[in-house]
Amino acid sequence: MKKRIYLDYAATTAKEIGNPSSIHQEGVKAKKRLDDARPEEIIFTSGGTESNNLAVFGAIDAGKHAITTVIEHSSVLECFRELEKRGVKVDYLPVNSEGILELKTLKKTLRFDTALVSIGYVNSEIGTIQPIREISKILPEAIIFHTDASQAPLYLNCERETLGADLITIDGHKIYGPLGVGALFFRRGIKLKPLMFGGGQENGLRSGTENLSAIIGLAEALESAKKNREKELVRLTALCNFFIAEVEKEIPNVILNGDRDKRLPNIINFSFPDREAEFLALQLDAAGIAVATKSACLKNDRESYVIKALGGDSHRATSAIRLSLGKDTKKGDLAYTIGTLKMLLRD
Amino acid sequence: MKKRIYLDYAATTAKEIGNPSSIHQEGVKAKKRLDDARPEEIIFTSGGTESNNLAVFGAIDAGKHAITTVIEHSSVLECFRELEKRGVKVDYLPVNSEGILELKTLKKTLRFDTALVSIGYVNSEIGTIQPIREISKILPEAIIFHTDASQAPLYLNCERETLGADLITIDGHKIYGPLGVGALFFRRGIKLKPLMFGGGQENGLRSGTENLSAIIGLAEALESAKKNREKELVRLTALCNFFIAEVEKEIPNVILNGDRDKRLPNIINFSFPDREAEFLALQLDAAGIAVATKSACLKNDRESYVIKALGGDSHRATSAIRLSLGKDTKKGDLAYTIGTLKMLLRD
Repeated sequence: MKKRIYLDYAATTAKEIGNPSSIHQEGVKAKKRLDDARPEEIIFTSGGTESNNLAVFGAIDAGKHAITTVIEHSSVLECFRELEKRGVKVDYLPVNSEGILELKTLKKTLRFDTALVSIGYVNSEIGTIQPIREISKILPEAIIFHTDASQAPLYLNCERETLGADLITIDGHKIYGPLGVGALFFRRGIKLKPLMFGGGQENGLRSGTENLSAIIGLAEALESAKKNREKELVRLTALCNFFIAEVEKEIPNVILNGDRDKRLPNIINFSFPDREAEFLALQLDAAGIAVATKSACLKNDRESYVIKALGGDSHRATSAIRLSLGKDTKKGDLAYTIGTLKMLLRD
Repeated sequence: MKKRIYLDYAATTAKEIGNPSSIHQEGVKAKKRLDDARPEEIIFTSGGTESNNLAVFGAIDAGKHAITTVIEHSSVLECFRELEKRGVKVDYLPVNSEGILELKTLKKTLRFDTALVSIGYVNSEIGTIQPIREISKILPEAIIFHTDASQAPLYLNCERETLGADLITIDGHKIYGPLGVGALFFRRGIKLKPLMFGGGQENGLRSGTENLSAIIGLAEALESAKKNREKELVRLTALCNFFIAEVEKEIPNVILNGDRDKRLPNIINFSFPDREAEFLALQLDAAGIAVATKSACLKNDRESYVIKALGGDSHRATSAIRLSLGKDTKKGDLAYTIGTLKMLLRD
């Protein structure tokens, strides 16, 4: 092909990628790559937080009623707090002691003016899986049902038809995809208001030049998650069971947070008696083990509101450690972690 | 260093980058890299559109008065249209026939309840430079002054002290930086409301895991822009002058859109008599030359509202072609473009 002269640097300087809104061949090619990466009914965003904000703020108007749970990720929970300020009536549902939302709790909270229900698929701190499919069945058609599935796609099928939700949040960097890109899958016909205004990209729902290479990376990550899902689920379930059994055998009085069965195997959360979680995490860090005390997206609070919602004594939430496993996690890593924990907790 | 065991995949699977909010060494390292990339008083966003949305929606409440111009980029203009729906009183100022906002026009529109003025530094379609510094001097301290400088950093100093604006939008992919990342520089003490809610990153003003590698890329692009600014300005000014002079010599009745002097040399916009711009752009595309008819972020309209705002007959806006030059643009490219234009316009 003959050399091209690119005189559209003001549209994008990233000419090898192109701006999908441009008229010339570079733009047309970018548009095609964008469309290829996009299954139907999806809006690409800058990440899980934006997807959740778009879903929550986009789906409801002042004066209506909305429902969520007390254990949602901050990027849902803080939106609901803001909804309240904007005149939306909000119910924050409790979960049972295993971290599961019971259907009867939801049922009795539904109102004639309920417009939005947002319940995360897998809790990021305790790995508990909510009964999204069952919830979708009891919700009237007129209620928009959103689920933040950011933690799920590596291990569970998150397709809209399977889950039954109207809006599903996906986050690139939680599934070995790029940072700075997410998606909101949506049921055709759902009316959303945009969060950002401008050039009207993504069907007017998400203005801003599409981050094409990140979008392609997200599509590839989803594809790869689907391919490896079953194998990884089996592998990590074995690791998870090994870890939980060993910890419960070796360390007295630990509490496993979250449901023992309805859980993803990659997230393990224990409360360690008489320990301050941050201190224990730093001790593990010094021993070369990176763990979390609570969601990374939760600052300034010493204790986890998720663990607190499970009940138990006040110390349980301040002594909770989350270990989340991934593709490079080996049994030896967990054995070393158990040994280190035993040593640290002996003192 | 001894092998590290990473058990925080739920915070981010991108463990080589890390989540700056995490407690462990990977997180601390990410936080340090983030802080190193950040000069003071800056919020990182997903791009120019988000920066503009954050500035416009963040700076004003219902009941107040806001001012912009009729030639702003859609990511500012559409925010102002939405502001009107949310109960903000808005004035859209005209520009003169060269595309410049006259200070006297602004002065007489200022009101006791004006809370926000947003005026782009360099217009993306015609390259016209607005007198941002002079505007900042006539605005009372209580008014928040925002400028979208997305098109400017490659050629002009965009530092806050130089421009005098309170809020300045920067866009990564307009300056050879990454797509999907932008910035909003802000004056210390300016109170902004967030656009997105969640983990409270970026001082509570922009929740969502920081897109660290993109942020570092943006910081590097800004550094590189600063370094090459003077040289590129000189080089492109010569190319721009050559192109304008040749086109005006060779093609009868063309109209140069925008101010002849107060302009960036990388954006050239001509109206070609009796031609439909989209058709001409496609003809140029077929000849291997990528140009634009209007902002890539402006769909569904055949004519450019920017060119229309300059006055002249109705055909001027539908016959306008924008050529934007960049680092790989050579004199030969422009000579070939002139030859092609001559040939196409001869028919």
